[in-house]
Amino acid sequence: MKLSEIAERLECRLEGDGDVEIRRVAGIERAGPGDLTFLVHQKYASKFAKTRASAVIVGLDVMSTGAPAALLRTDQPYVAFARAVALLMPAVPPARGVDRTSAIAPDVKLGPDVSIGPFVTIGAGASIGARTVIYPNVVVGAGAQVGEDCVLHSQVSIRDRVVVGHRVVVQDGSIVGSEGFGFARQPDGTHLKIPQRADIVIEDDVEIGANTTIDRPAIGETRIGAGTKIDNLVQVAHGVTVGRRVLLAAQVGIAGSCVIGDDVVLAGQVGVANHVRLGKGVMATAQTGIPNSVGDGEYLSGYPAVPHRDWLKSSAVVRQLPALKKRVAHLEQRLAELEEKLARCQTASDR
Amino acid sequence: MKLSEIAERLECRLEGDGDVEIRRVAGIERAGPGDLTFLVHQKYASKFAKTRASAVIVGLDVMSTGAPAALLRTDQPYVAFARAVALLMPAVPPARGVDRTSAIAPDVKLGPDVSIGPFVTIGAGASIGARTVIYPNVVVGAGAQVGEDCVLHSQVSIRDRVVVGHRVVVQDGSIVGSEGFGFARQPDGTHLKIPQRADIVIEDDVEIGANTTIDRPAIGETRIGAGTKIDNLVQVAHGVTVGRRVLLAAQVGIAGSCVIGDDVVLAGQVGVANHVRLGKGVMATAQTGIPNSVGDGEYLSGYPAVPHRDWLKSSAVVRQLPALKKRVAHLEQRLAELEEKLARCQTASDR
Amino acid sequence: MKLSEIAERLECRLEGDGDVEIRRVAGIERAGPGDLTFLVHQKYASKFAKTRASAVIVGLDVMSTGAPAALLRTDQPYVAFARAVALLMPAVPPARGVDRTSAIAPDVKLGPDVSIGPFVTIGAGASIGARTVIYPNVVVGAGAQVGEDCVLHSQVSIRDRVVVGHRVVVQDGSIVGSEGFGFARQPDGTHLKIPQRADIVIEDDVEIGANTTIDRPAIGETRIGAGTKIDNLVQVAHGVTVGRRVLLAAQVGIAGSCVIGDDVVLAGQVGVANHVRLGKGVMATAQTGIPNSVGDGEYLSGYPAVPHRDWLKSSAVVRQLPALKKRVAHLEQRLAELEEKLARCQTASDR
Repeated sequence: MKLSEIAERLECRLEGDGDVEIRRVAGIERAGPGDLTFLVHQKYASKFAKTRASAVIVGLDVMSTGAPAALLRTDQPYVAFARAVALLMPAVPPARGVDRTSAIAPDVKLGPDVSIGPFVTIGAGASIGARTVIYPNVVVGAGAQVGEDCVLHSQVSIRDRVVVGHRVVVQDGSIVGSEGFGFARQPDGTHLKIPQRADIVIEDDVEIGANTTIDRPAIGETRIGAGTKIDNLVQVAHGVTVGRRVLLAAQVGIAGSCVIGDDVVLAGQVGVANHVRLGKGVMATAQTGIPNSVGDGEYLSGYPAVPHRDWLKSSAVVRQLPALKKRVAHLEQRLAELEEKLARCQTASDR
Repeated sequence: MKLSEIAERLECRLEGDGDVEIRRVAGIERAGPGDLTFLVHQKYASKFAKTRASAVIVGLDVMSTGAPAALLRTDQPYVAFARAVALLMPAVPPARGVDRTSAIAPDVKLGPDVSIGPFVTIGAGASIGARTVIYPNVVVGAGAQVGEDCVLHSQVSIRDRVVVGHRVVVQDGSIVGSEGFGFARQPDGTHLKIPQRADIVIEDDVEIGANTTIDRPAIGETRIGAGTKIDNLVQVAHGVTVGRRVLLAAQVGIAGSCVIGDDVVLAGQVGVANHVRLGKGVMATAQTGIPNSVGDGEYLSGYPAVPHRDWLKSSAVVRQLPALKKRVAHLEQRLAELEEKLARCQTASDR
Repeated sequence: MKLSEIAERLECRLEGDGDVEIRRVAGIERAGPGDLTFLVHQKYASKFAKTRASAVIVGLDVMSTGAPAALLRTDQPYVAFARAVALLMPAVPPARGVDRTSAIAPDVKLGPDVSIGPFVTIGAGASIGARTVIYPNVVVGAGAQVGEDCVLHSQVSIRDRVVVGHRVVVQDGSIVGSEGFGFARQPDGTHLKIPQRADIVIEDDVEIGANTTIDRPAIGETRIGAGTKIDNLVQVAHGVTVGRRVLLAAQVGIAGSCVIGDDVVLAGQVGVANHVRLGKGVMATAQTGIPNSVGDGEYLSGYPAVPHRDWLKSSAVVRQLPALKKRVAHLEQRLAELEEKLARCQTASDR
């Protein structure tokens, strides 16, 4: 595809030769002739000068003097990069239609142009929206509703009565609607199961990573808000409400009945204790453990979580602790000597 | 169902109008007319006064004066709640019989009234107990034994020769009997696999969450004790012995050859190092890392784990560390001044 | 099998009766007559004296006087143990051939002597090498290449165009080639997906545990080096390069674009932040969080990670922090008293 056409499609300003033929998108160091690359962080500017790419997507602030390639200039270089990848590496959707080996209950409602692969099971009373793609070995339970333009990858399980919105993507092996971890301790010490059969709703434009688990509750509902993106191996427990446009990185765990505000960002392996409320836009760095609710806009680190700035200061001192302990011991010694001297001094002055 | 009938079935004392019709169980804040709710923690008493529910399950200590609804009184309100959910939201079991698309070896022993869904594979010599339900796409390996009244949800893999007791529930996507992570480093630095083909036993009344993994060992056995409940995304490594009535919350990891005592409770994301023994009733808060064995009844937190009380104290001081460091620096300064003054004082008194 | 034959096959020196019949390998405490056991760590020497095993694999340094059993002596006792298990507990491979219920695209290239179980889907243009075993319910995507002598266990998903080398083992439920977690924030706060369709390569002799996830990137590639072993529930994000002979224990998480050097060993639940480079032979203890790159041979602990020795020292002081804080408060009190006394002393000496 000609660079000039790409510029037009990505709504970027072209600076340089628009006739160059672009074949793929590549990283700034690996890119060669025929490649389009991008410069998002100014800190990679030194790599920019050396790139062998034919064209570079850049922000408005990047200098063009001495540019080694044609430029596609935009105020949203990362968004333009995303679009360039979609343009130059188009998805190959599976064939439309229903594979003859699938086991679809007679009363399932299938929208137009669905694609359903081999060994897919869809239970009684379920519905699948238009153009939704279901890869092999997926199980959709009885009464589940899956919206339009969804993609369910292989080995996914959508349990009975789960409601999934439009344009939802579920990567391979994820489980939506498994039964929450709820037991009542009985007088003899055994655990009586509290049946977990209540509702679970995945709103529009959610993406769920691979081998992630989202549980349903005993009462009320579990809900993932519109536009939220969840990475791999994440645990969302029963009765959790996740807001809109939230980002949950890999291996995050959210315990039961939490309420996660809109635009929250939790980095990898973060844990949130049960019944915690995170305000809008809360952020937490990797491995943070959050035992208590926090208000809007907090930026957290550590276990137990504290404001990131405080954590940076505490962590710095933790590393110096052995030295600090020595300083205290040294102080004690000096003070003891001083006390002794002073006792002598006083005796002297008393004489 | 009439409240009086529910009271009878839950073995609760009815206080109020037993003729009211109850349709579902709901949370104390969301409940409305026709709903049964519950009050387990006294701290929610303020919500109790405002509930719109038709009936409330309460403990013996809750005051009935000014109760806004009929009461079901019991000394085990949480257990009664569990039974109420089971009563009012009954499970819809799949149809009995064996789906014609399943692949069941000719010599498999199937108990009466089993339910086996589409695309289930059961290997040679395996046995499935009476009334056990196997959802679509489950694989049961050769020679595996699954007891009576079990439920294996979709995408589960029970590997060959695994022994599963009665009334065991396995949520979707969990793996029982995968090969443990055991390798011997060879002189050239490569890792030689130690075949992991020994036994694995899941005792009666165990529940295993979604996408959890339980490995088999090279020698000896991996064993999950009766009545133990395991949440989602938990790792139980090869050769681990988990006791009875243990609770393992989501994303817990237990390394090889550990022995976990009866009634242990590990909160989310806890890690236990290999060969560690945890005594009976040990508890650990979320994200605790346990490197060494501990005796019965210990309550642990932190990494490396220490008694919870000590951890609370240490954590409090960690937050104050920058201030403590300043105090030490201030002490050093004052002490230096004092030493100087004393030197002068001594000189004065020596004169 | 006669012990003399085992000695020969394991290339061990036999000390004792070679005619004894050995039936299985067992742990040193559980072993009885007819069992072969092993002594790897000298610290178990007391158990050695009491073992009821018929034979023991031992290192060169173990004393034979008073040995309670025949000995198989070698300079590599752990390697000999691995071979003994393979010898005495041989794997039972599934039948060769392609199950009639599988869904294999017409143009798939199948090598000789493959074994393909029920409900396996293999997409168009894929290839499967000689003698590779594919268990039930595995999905291999279009254009994927799987080498010779591989084993793909049940419920595995190998996505389209993934390249898998020879002798690769993937335990049940693992996902190779799911789409990385890459989104570009748009001006309205929504997240635009950056399509993740680039390459992913699993080199020869890799083992991947159960329910592990390995993502593909938007550009460049994800690569797992030859001989690397990955445990259960591990996350390897998009664009990560893992070196050769690396060991990743259960629940490790490696964020995007990391470069993990050869022979690195990460213990359970370790997290590595994105774009981090770990030098050759880096080791990290369980639950370590690594935010920054480190050079060859570092041994890390803690969060944020520091050299293990420093962490041991800091951790020791952290436990003593409440006491340290009291010592500082005591110092402050004594110092204040001293300052007061000195003021009086000076007044006295000034008179």
